[in-house]
Amino acid sequence: MTGETFIATYHISCPIDQAEARAQDICVEQTVEFPPDLIEREDIHEEIIGKVLSVVKRGDDLFEADIEFATETAGRELPQLLNVLFGNISIKPGIKLVGFDLAESQYEVFKGPRFGRKGIRELLGVPDRPLVATAVKPMGLSAGELANLASKFATGEIDMIKDDHGLSDQTFCRFEDRVKQCADAVNAAVAKTGKPCLYFPNITAPIDQIRDRAHFAKEAGAGGCVISPGLVGMDTMRSIAEDDDLAMPILAHPSLLGSFTVNPTFGISHGALYGQITRLAGADATIFPSAGGRFAFTEAECKDLADRTLLPMGHLKPTLPVPAGGMTFDKIPKMLDLYGKEVILLIGGDLHRHGPDLSENCRKFVELVS
Amino acid sequence: MTGETFIATYHISCPIDQAEARAQDICVEQTVEFPPDLIEREDIHEEIIGKVLSVVKRGDDLFEADIEFATETAGRELPQLLNVLFGNISIKPGIKLVGFDLAESQYEVFKGPRFGRKGIRELLGVPDRPLVATAVKPMGLSAGELANLASKFATGEIDMIKDDHGLSDQTFCRFEDRVKQCADAVNAAVAKTGKPCLYFPNITAPIDQIRDRAHFAKEAGAGGCVISPGLVGMDTMRSIAEDDDLAMPILAHPSLLGSFTVNPTFGISHGALYGQITRLAGADATIFPSAGGRFAFTEAECKDLADRTLLPMGHLKPTLPVPAGGMTFDKIPKMLDLYGKEVILLIGGDLHRHGPDLSENCRKFVELVS
Repeated sequence: MTGETFIATYHISCPIDQAEARAQDICVEQTVEFPPDLIEREDIHEEIIGKVLSVVKRGDDLFEADIEFATETAGRELPQLLNVLFGNISIKPGIKLVGFDLAESQYEVFKGPRFGRKGIRELLGVPDRPLVATAVKPMGLSAGELANLASKFATGEIDMIKDDHGLSDQTFCRFEDRVKQCADAVNAAVAKTGKPCLYFPNITAPIDQIRDRAHFAKEAGAGGCVISPGLVGMDTMRSIAEDDDLAMPILAHPSLLGSFTVNPTFGISHGALYGQITRLAGADATIFPSAGGRFAFTEAECKDLADRTLLPMGHLKPTLPVPAGGMTFDKIPKMLDLYGKEVILLIGGDLHRHGPDLSENCRKFVELVS
Repeated sequence: MTGETFIATYHISCPIDQAEARAQDICVEQTVEFPPDLIEREDIHEEIIGKVLSVVKRGDDLFEADIEFATETAGRELPQLLNVLFGNISIKPGIKLVGFDLAESQYEVFKGPRFGRKGIRELLGVPDRPLVATAVKPMGLSAGELANLASKFATGEIDMIKDDHGLSDQTFCRFEDRVKQCADAVNAAVAKTGKPCLYFPNITAPIDQIRDRAHFAKEAGAGGCVISPGLVGMDTMRSIAEDDDLAMPILAHPSLLGSFTVNPTFGISHGALYGQITRLAGADATIFPSAGGRFAFTEAECKDLADRTLLPMGHLKPTLPVPAGGMTFDKIPKMLDLYGKEVILLIGGDLHRHGPDLSENCRKFVELVS
């Protein structure tokens, strides 16, 4: 054992007289998962079982515990790191993973975001204003109809256009057909406007097909990819993001991940999940349900998330936060107050409410953030 | 569109005057995710947006809704099926997916458990008593120490021995070394006792390595594999389970999946997640935190799970339920009352509490269920 460690921070909801014991329980459950009194080897007690560094009161029946784990327990693998951070204790109520601070050697295992904030801005030719994005949708439109929408959005000089995350490879809109037509439409519009616009098709797919879809998207002229790591696994996103032959920006979507964040007293915090874990797994931009939308999250949770996309994490580039989920033009000032300029504002349905000229609506969207 | 549909069942926690609206909201959120009033094409309203079949009161502020979706919305892909079943609504409080009934054509897409209950029993030569299993652990032991434990367990004629799910490929116990030594130890013991015993190494690993680890395990003489689909994705488990060159029994572990089940009012029920989804994804046996252990679940939740491992699901074979998480000899009668004979009882730590002769303890374990 090298003696090198990393720290995970948990919020524990329980009466004060149980807080220390619950923190100790995490140390055991996440490592040996075995009755400590039955472990004879002293070095396993010393070096494998986690150590409680501190337990601090944060509210009524709410405690924050820092726990130290040996880096070697997590191997050099994202699935096993997730296992040590929150594997078995995900099953216990009242524990929330709220952040972590890995050893330098652990960050070195991961490439992280290939483009990050700066890289995405360079691709888009937008050095400092907030970025703006929308989605081609709804599910049920043909590839040609979606491409027509994409063309209008790009003509309106929006920065990014993503597939709705529910567009996969359905009979009414096949993946290859959609991606080719939408990429062509966007690239033709860009050739006219001169303003870069990136199209992000959804490549979330069966594990045996996802890499092929990513490469098809690249060859078709797409500017990036949408992946829902909840549907295909965080490590699958990491593997696609780290593919040097692909080298495309990755936009992470939160589908199926909500059960981790929706309860304030257990699961994984917005910040740890969408801010830190998706960043480890290579997301250049991370979509999340924002405060003020149709999902129920607090400004503090969202602010913590945005902070963690920028938090020092070894050599890992910062990710761009993408607050979404029922955003509207009306909410833009409030969003900018909350997130500042280092953000991608994603507006879907509401972009269609401001008159029939979608290109004009996109121009207005850009104006509202400029 | 073919007109073919499937049904998902949700529990919705809300006041009675909101129940119908919340069910309608699921129909939209899980398909078009777009304001319906902005959708002009009538056929999208008719054929793409889900339909509420029924909303039935199940308790105080608790309603059960059956919702019908067109099979084509889910494509022929597990990730997109999960997306339609529970993708975006995972982010909304008060909604729990409690079961689903797919169309025959959807079940045909999946191979499901290759061995299932009958196949596992045939491999073990145990036609009808409850099966018994334990784990080599704790993390921190060397490959040789773990193999020594495995040898004692197999000598005691236990049916199955799994790696602890926290054993991956750590410096203090490398994957290949551990798997080779444990498989050799188990197979040598079996050669002496004549009673089959299957060793299930944990192959949960980075996506680029998991298939290689599975094949290494097979060549080393392992009898099956442990996969934590929460750590690597449900579809990754499906892909490994469906690998005809591998053709090994798959044991699913619930690591990181707890946030879906731990709250009674949202997430995915024990039954839908560990009973149905892991079965679609090819698990021959499914480990879950049982009532009466160190995790907090009710008997009703566990019974529903066991029922759903057997529920008619097209051609899919039934999975074996594996209640675990702090099980002890004392609890065996209660476990058998609850689950009957079609079960694998998994006891880890407690097996070490009944005297120093681990082989003898295994024999006692078999006796207690016979």
